[in-house]
Amino acid sequence: MAAAPTSDSPPLDAQRSEQIETALRRWAQFDANCPAQLGEAIRYSLLAPGKRLRPHLVLLAAEACGGAAAVEQALPAAVAVEMIHAYSLVHDDLPAMDDDDLRRGRPTCHKQFDEATAILVGDALLTRAFEVLATGIQPGERAARCCALLAKAAGPEALVGGQADDLAAEFRHIGLERLQSIHRRKTGALFRASLELGAVAADGSAEQRQALVLFGEKLGHAFQIVDDLLDVSGNEANVGKRIGKDRHRGKVTYPSLLGVEPSRRRAAELIEEACQAIDSFGAAAQPLRELAEFVGRRSR
Amino acid sequence: MAAAPTSDSPPLDAQRSEQIETALRRWAQFDANCPAQLGEAIRYSLLAPGKRLRPHLVLLAAEACGGAAAVEQALPAAVAVEMIHAYSLVHDDLPAMDDDDLRRGRPTCHKQFDEATAILVGDALLTRAFEVLATGIQPGERAARCCALLAKAAGPEALVGGQADDLAAEFRHIGLERLQSIHRRKTGALFRASLELGAVAADGSAEQRQALVLFGEKLGHAFQIVDDLLDVSGNEANVGKRIGKDRHRGKVTYPSLLGVEPSRRRAAELIEEACQAIDSFGAAAQPLRELAEFVGRRSR
Repeated sequence: MAAAPTSDSPPLDAQRSEQIETALRRWAQFDANCPAQLGEAIRYSLLAPGKRLRPHLVLLAAEACGGAAAVEQALPAAVAVEMIHAYSLVHDDLPAMDDDDLRRGRPTCHKQFDEATAILVGDALLTRAFEVLATGIQPGERAARCCALLAKAAGPEALVGGQADDLAAEFRHIGLERLQSIHRRKTGALFRASLELGAVAADGSAEQRQALVLFGEKLGHAFQIVDDLLDVSGNEANVGKRIGKDRHRGKVTYPSLLGVEPSRRRAAELIEEACQAIDSFGAAAQPLRELAEFVGRRSR
Repeated sequence: MAAAPTSDSPPLDAQRSEQIETALRRWAQFDANCPAQLGEAIRYSLLAPGKRLRPHLVLLAAEACGGAAAVEQALPAAVAVEMIHAYSLVHDDLPAMDDDDLRRGRPTCHKQFDEATAILVGDALLTRAFEVLATGIQPGERAARCCALLAKAAGPEALVGGQADDLAAEFRHIGLERLQSIHRRKTGALFRASLELGAVAADGSAEQRQALVLFGEKLGHAFQIVDDLLDVSGNEANVGKRIGKDRHRGKVTYPSLLGVEPSRRRAAELIEEACQAIDSFGAAAQPLRELAEFVGRRSR
């Protein structure tokens, strides 16, 4: 199944990755009522090369709860989280927001197309995510639960609120608690939702769901610390976006608050706690543990 | 129930209007994870004075299918369509889009706050609409159907696609077919969805749903013709937005393509066809007919 992990390649099953790409491509096809250029811009943003970490998390959570059979059931949820992730990047990159021109190693959507198109691409991806969930997850009652939890994670009390506070924090000193609160909403909520969506789509038990949610929270937190560390010490070719932009923008980060080494230690602790949270799954959660450990290794 | 209609006041039940406002206010409250200014900007945009035509349509459709008891069941759908409508106005008004500074007689969201906030307000309202549907409509299977149909109506094959084509049509001559295609997606789809949401939330029969959908399509089409006519002959105080902006922006409209009088006749025909579509409901659909006739009267 998974290739032997090295420090550079994530331990993601290649066949699973292909399954995700196929599903993303399928859901990024539109009928003639979608203007051709809009469809192209949606696909440009959604299908840009990426690790698809969140979709993999959805499917691995489903597999941990319900085995291989549950993976197919959860596929629409994997597509939906990637759509939410892609939309949030397109809107965050806009001139009025983070004003970025490079993303995943390519021009950002508003650079490649124009600003109006980028706004509409984000709106389209956000809307489409709920269409995919509502029509793709079965039975309907489970689809509604998935829509509710994804909307909560993507809404003003989580993703959107985190982005608003993140913008407000530019060039201002904030403490660790505030920084964590921003990250919990801006990054953590979608990690957490990815795991929970997998559990709900696979009809996992309440205990399984809670364990996976805790794993997602710890992993999301670690991921953000690692992201901050990479902004200090990574290189653009590997990271696929501008390096040093946090400092350039006067942003408080984990390394700037805690120092580099303590940040690395904190990330390692969180990865360990994440893995402990899913102890009870035994071997069924081994791929999730390997993925968490990969996230941890990226900080070194 | 409804006040005697005059040419200026819509035949909307005042108690029903209050029920809608209360529900909108309730769903526009957020926990402490939503930044205060973002919450304020969301409420500024969602709770701005308005007729709430679409929410009324949802509730009247539900009532036509299931009587007074169905109105309460459909209330979350009424909130959700108004959130989609409000989000689309906030994003359409942005400088990169229609660049408007007046809306419903007040500064647009990006004028009152700033551009980043307006982008996030739109994202938040769009997301919240699905949270309201997914958690508010019961049972879950029905909620999923509502999410699916609203997402379709708001997505790239309808609302978002219509807006993209509308922007592309500025300062270009387009024919009647193209104009209708834009309006069907940009305005018509949400009217249609409002009626269908009411029917689905009230568990109406397939025949009831189809009749209401047809009513919604005809009414939406008439509404857009009337909107074009008001842009020629209305006044800002009554219409609550800039007048003459279509011409200013080099936009093809129904009056510019067909002339004023033929446009008025076309709107009147559509209103008549809309009312015929719901003939089978008898007295249960009388308030819907009165609302349609009010829309028709506005063009004179």
